[in-house]
Amino acid sequence: MIYLSRHAHFCAAHKLYNPKWSKEQNEEVFGPCANENWHGHNFDLIVTIRGVPDPETGFVMNFKDLNRLIKEEIIQKVDHKNLNLDVDFLAGKITSCEVVTIEFWKILAPLIAQTTQERAQLHSIKLYETARNYAEYYGE
Amino acid sequence: MIYLSRHAHFCAAHKLYNPKWSKEQNEEVFGPCANENWHGHNFDLIVTIRGVPDPETGFVMNFKDLNRLIKEEIIQKVDHKNLNLDVDFLAGKITSCEVVTIEFWKILAPLIAQTTQERAQLHSIKLYETARNYAEYYGE
Amino acid sequence: MIYLSRHAHFCAAHKLYNPKWSKEQNEEVFGPCANENWHGHNFDLIVTIRGVPDPETGFVMNFKDLNRLIKEEIIQKVDHKNLNLDVDFLAGKITSCEVVTIEFWKILAPLIAQTTQERAQLHSIKLYETARNYAEYYGE
Amino acid sequence: MIYLSRHAHFCAAHKLYNPKWSKEQNEEVFGPCANENWHGHNFDLIVTIRGVPDPETGFVMNFKDLNRLIKEEIIQKVDHKNLNLDVDFLAGKITSCEVVTIEFWKILAPLIAQTTQERAQLHSIKLYETARNYAEYYGE
Amino acid sequence: MIYLSRHAHFCAAHKLYNPKWSKEQNEEVFGPCANENWHGHNFDLIVTIRGVPDPETGFVMNFKDLNRLIKEEIIQKVDHKNLNLDVDFLAGKITSCEVVTIEFWKILAPLIAQTTQERAQLHSIKLYETARNYAEYYGE
Amino acid sequence: MIYLSRHAHFCAAHKLYNPKWSKEQNEEVFGPCANENWHGHNFDLIVTIRGVPDPETGFVMNFKDLNRLIKEEIIQKVDHKNLNLDVDFLAGKITSCEVVTIEFWKILAPLIAQTTQERAQLHSIKLYETARNYAEYYGE
Repeated sequence: MIYLSRHAHFCAAHKLYNPKWSKEQNEEVFGPCANENWHGHNFDLIVTIRGVPDPETGFVMNFKDLNRLIKEEIIQKVDHKNLNLDVDFLAGKITSCEVVTIEFWKILAPLIAQTTQERAQLHSIKLYETARNYAEYYGE
Repeated sequence: MIYLSRHAHFCAAHKLYNPKWSKEQNEEVFGPCANENWHGHNFDLIVTIRGVPDPETGFVMNFKDLNRLIKEEIIQKVDHKNLNLDVDFLAGKITSCEVVTIEFWKILAPLIAQTTQERAQLHSIKLYETARNYAEYYGE
Repeated sequence: MIYLSRHAHFCAAHKLYNPKWSKEQNEEVFGPCANENWHGHNFDLIVTIRGVPDPETGFVMNFKDLNRLIKEEIIQKVDHKNLNLDVDFLAGKITSCEVVTIEFWKILAPLIAQTTQERAQLHSIKLYETARNYAEYYGE
Repeated sequence: MIYLSRHAHFCAAHKLYNPKWSKEQNEEVFGPCANENWHGHNFDLIVTIRGVPDPETGFVMNFKDLNRLIKEEIIQKVDHKNLNLDVDFLAGKITSCEVVTIEFWKILAPLIAQTTQERAQLHSIKLYETARNYAEYYGE
Repeated sequence: MIYLSRHAHFCAAHKLYNPKWSKEQNEEVFGPCANENWHGHNFDLIVTIRGVPDPETGFVMNFKDLNRLIKEEIIQKVDHKNLNLDVDFLAGKITSCEVVTIEFWKILAPLIAQTTQERAQLHSIKLYETARNYAEYYGE
Repeated sequence: MIYLSRHAHFCAAHKLYNPKWSKEQNEEVFGPCANENWHGHNFDLIVTIRGVPDPETGFVMNFKDLNRLIKEEIIQKVDHKNLNLDVDFLAGKITSCEVVTIEFWKILAPLIAQTTQERAQLHSIKLYETARNYAEYYGE
């Protein structure tokens, strides 16, 4: 069993805002992240899969295929977007680093198993919101 | 003459959009950066000053003072903000990396000369929009 | 269960020295790290907590609160200090990267559980002594 | 139990090529990595060991000794080499990031146990082929 | 006048070898870089242009266009290649970091002036061979 | 004319302290950097030389020779040392980032000219005290 990781990145706007609360309550909880006019980040995403290398190729999964999957299923939907307004799978959700990470997992986990015919499985999703803050999810 | 640099960073939303043009023309020129719902970045800012060290302190300018100036005059005005909507000195401007860099220069150049009583001068402003793109301005 | 990490950093002096040994024995075991006049590092600290996000906020723990805790309980006690002479919780200990990491754990583990009312727990402490050397501790 | 990691790096040429296949099949599977005239990378290697610190030294293993072991047993054999042609322990193997990582494990795992008289064990080998792609192996 | 920079990267094999010299003389001068079986690097390339921003767009040159030019004219010709064998504009040259940097300049300088209709000019080419070594060229 | 740069690093203790002043005055000017018990940093040093490549080697100066010079003349004298107590060329000086940078220049400038028989000249010394603060000197 070996673990394979691929970095990707995207630029997006968001705000942290719970629509059930008043503006004041949002500002108290989320601080400057609640700015109504949005702020944004260069997000760094690290996708890790695990599996046994194929003896014919030496690959758990071709980096090229893993990269293409991440690009098509995640990056194209979030890059240069507003996470709260433009991304269907985040609609109505609080776009905290934790929540976005979990939603990325839900998309990629079945696709990686399927693309590799169960040879590889998604192991973790790591999402840097800034160079100093990140969330990581292992699916459970 | 020695050069002294200090890094700072901020998270902000923006879009590239010329209000004189149609939506189509904006998309043609600015591509995904014209997304009406905004996108954003973790901007990295490097401020470089130059001067002769004071023999009593070994300093051109105290890093602490330089840091405070950058924080108060720039970072607090742009961090967790929308560059197009929330920042008075960018109002009505196209918030390209080039333009923002020049506007930061206009604010910091006189303040650094004044704070150091002309011992130091602003030498350059370097602004990373992403880890791969940056602008740099030397005041002329 | 999701994992949330926050980077912090501090600059400190230290030396590796076992007072029970002769100077020669210390130099033999610790090499240049035993220099009596001290050396120092820019330490990078990564604190990882784990928990279930609160559905109201999307947070396991507010990054702002985690950051404040690390600053007040660790950084203010070690930044611009001598780890051997100035830090009460390291007094009489060998300040190897391993030992410092474990001592940070002992401070932060109960505080994170308490601050989050058991919603989150400390998962790991990772401490870079240089860009090439680091220790990591999981509490057991 | 604490984990200790050390970074090292090396520059090497390689190609991904299965000699049982035609040139066309290799190009189809491995893409530009199959270039017959080779390509190359600055590989970054992170070796992590685990163990209980010695109370006399505060060390699981002296970083100096860990560094020397990595240099002598790995780096000197692969740095400024062709992984396919010059490295005995990779002869006849497909030099994918996964396979190289596993072969490094096989060399270092017994040596670390032996050098530390079982105080420390190899925990993981992490190998970056580029800043965006890496493999990690835990020995099972 | 403002300066705009764009990072790109490529993976390539090469060796340092003067065909007029004996194998021994090459090894004496170039050390392990003369290895006949090649070695390789992840090269990082930073292209800097300078010009006056267009008031309509805020751009000296669209990052997208600059990126495309670098990709088409440089990266596609050197990525996953052998610099000594596969790259027409390096044929018969010693592929030192210095020489490769100068050859990149010769290709990009006229193209940038032409693409921007003289609005922008190439200012510098910076090429990292490893994270610790780089060359920089300003055209004269 | 091409510019060639080499990174090096060292770990050292220091304090900022003017012996002509009272303890209080030192603390007022230098803040926590005046801590009597020292603090320290992982310093990053970038040495840049300039010259015309030798047509036989493609080199302005062999990276290997430049590296050896930096190691022998600078790094061995400051690594794992106390800059105020252990380094002869800093004795009696305030060890600010600016002053240390200038002193490194004075050592390396004549040696680089001499080693390369005037083919190359020292162009700049850049010294990072932390990842966020650095000084740069061009010799005048």
